Amino acid sequence: MTTPPPVLSMNLATTRGVWGFAEAVEGCLRADITAISPWRDQVAAIGLAEAARIVQANGLRLTGYCRGGMFPAADAAGRQAAIEDNLRAIDEAAALGADCLVLVVGGLPGESRDIAEARRMVADGIAAMLPHARACNMPLAIEPLHPMYAADRACVNTIDQALDLCVALGDGVGVAIDVYHVWWDPGLAAAIDRAGRMGAILAHHICDWLVPTTDMLLDRGMMGDGVIDLRGIRAMIEAAGFHGPQEVEIFSAGNWWKRPGDDVVATCKTRWQEHCLTG
Amino acid sequence: MTTPPPVLSMNLATTRGVWGFAEAVEGCLRADITAISPWRDQVAAIGLAEAARIVQANGLRLTGYCRGGMFPAADAAGRQAAIEDNLRAIDEAAALGADCLVLVVGGLPGESRDIAEARRMVADGIAAMLPHARACNMPLAIEPLHPMYAADRACVNTIDQALDLCVALGDGVGVAIDVYHVWWDPGLAAAIDRAGRMGAILAHHICDWLVPTTDMLLDRGMMGDGVIDLRGIRAMIEAAGFHGPQEVEIFSAGNWWKRPGDDVVATCKTRWQEHCLTG
Repeated sequence: MTTPPPVLSMNLATTRGVWGFAEAVEGCLRADITAISPWRDQVAAIGLAEAARIVQANGLRLTGYCRGGMFPAADAAGRQAAIEDNLRAIDEAAALGADCLVLVVGGLPGESRDIAEARRMVADGIAAMLPHARACNMPLAIEPLHPMYAADRACVNTIDQALDLCVALGDGVGVAIDVYHVWWDPGLAAAIDRAGRMGAILAHHICDWLVPTTDMLLDRGMMGDGVIDLRGIRAMIEAAGFHGPQEVEIFSAGNWWKRPGDDVVATCKTRWQEHCLTG
Repeated sequence: MTTPPPVLSMNLATTRGVWGFAEAVEGCLRADITAISPWRDQVAAIGLAEAARIVQANGLRLTGYCRGGMFPAADAAGRQAAIEDNLRAIDEAAALGADCLVLVVGGLPGESRDIAEARRMVADGIAAMLPHARACNMPLAIEPLHPMYAADRACVNTIDQALDLCVALGDGVGVAIDVYHVWWDPGLAAAIDRAGRMGAILAHHICDWLVPTTDMLLDRGMMGDGVIDLRGIRAMIEAAGFHGPQEVEIFSAGNWWKRPGDDVVATCKTRWQEHCLTG
């Protein structure tokens, strides 16, 4: 059995500062990158049908579609609205032929201090959307987010916690492993191994953790500029059986979002080659 | 068996903006607070002997001494210097009669991306200081810090990880549980229960997690202003057998450090009574 050649995917958040969907696709193609991961607002801006046409016409692979989730809400109507929005996200991901729908699950609803309850809302929300996802053959990729986002973005904060959800929910759910969120985890190697044995690794996102980090959301670093052992984590992921694309996702309001898109893409490609490939 | 009455301790970082050691002690006494936790620089500024005299003269309880740690370094000389500094910290804590020496263990040394190695340096550093700590009857309280500090402040990031270190190191080492660092942990209840069964809970620190948090280090919230279930976590800690003081530790450059110390102390006391007491 030979492993597939390494593939770089561009999450289109990385060029959010300068490019919409069509420009980003053109920029990726100029750099010989044919795998992308777009966001719902980017697709909505150009229209789902046109986005799907561009994907098909260029033979693009979508390593993910960003994003569903945000399940907790202060009342039942809010939770139902979230589920309905997630059903639409499944349809969009299917229309685009994405590998998976990425789920950022949401944090504490309203004035709540009950994170256990928020986590139950997440489980209930995914369970409610799962039949439709299965019917559409659209895998759901739970993305554990860094614990610093537990309050306001995602109350699923470790790979193991996400895998426990996968076990409870059954087929059709896996995890997106983003190095930014999990690199610190003292149980990382064991968790990635467990994910591999479950066949649950659906995506691998890369960027870097800067020291210092000046903004909790929008100061992610380019691979090689921070402290994450990107090659080491990739080796764990490959040892766990996942040889799929590495998807660059950098939120960087102060730096990369201000640069020309072609420069950003070229830098991503070089740094991926320098810092993220094994063997 | 009756449980002791609830006790509030003031970590003197909370009034760092306005008070030195002596003023902080006077301020606490005005509010009928007789438990404190000072920092080494605050003690050094007034002199260890004078600080110890003030502690004794006023019958103060020191719920901790802040802080030792910072073990990882890029070379052996740096690691040895850290150990020697920690030995001095033990002597100071003993001279002051502190309940424990709090350890913030340090992050990645130099340009390292090897967090596993940093963690080994931490284990080695604590092992090297432990004989002297035991000889002085000074418990060492490993404080797991929030994962957002893994790179630059502490590579011990969960209670379970700290307890694994305690198991490996043996008698004389326990944990300081600070709600700010651990509230998000999906395994929190189990970890606190484990710590209790090990007899390893040495301190309980309180503050709150603000939404949004505008600074990763210096924007901690006053109890009640954030999303942490302070009463719920206290109940877990008491169920695990720890009924010692709750120590308020708030780093707040933009807010509480700018207020008059007496107002800060009074607010801490009120909020502790409103949000942090069980039963």
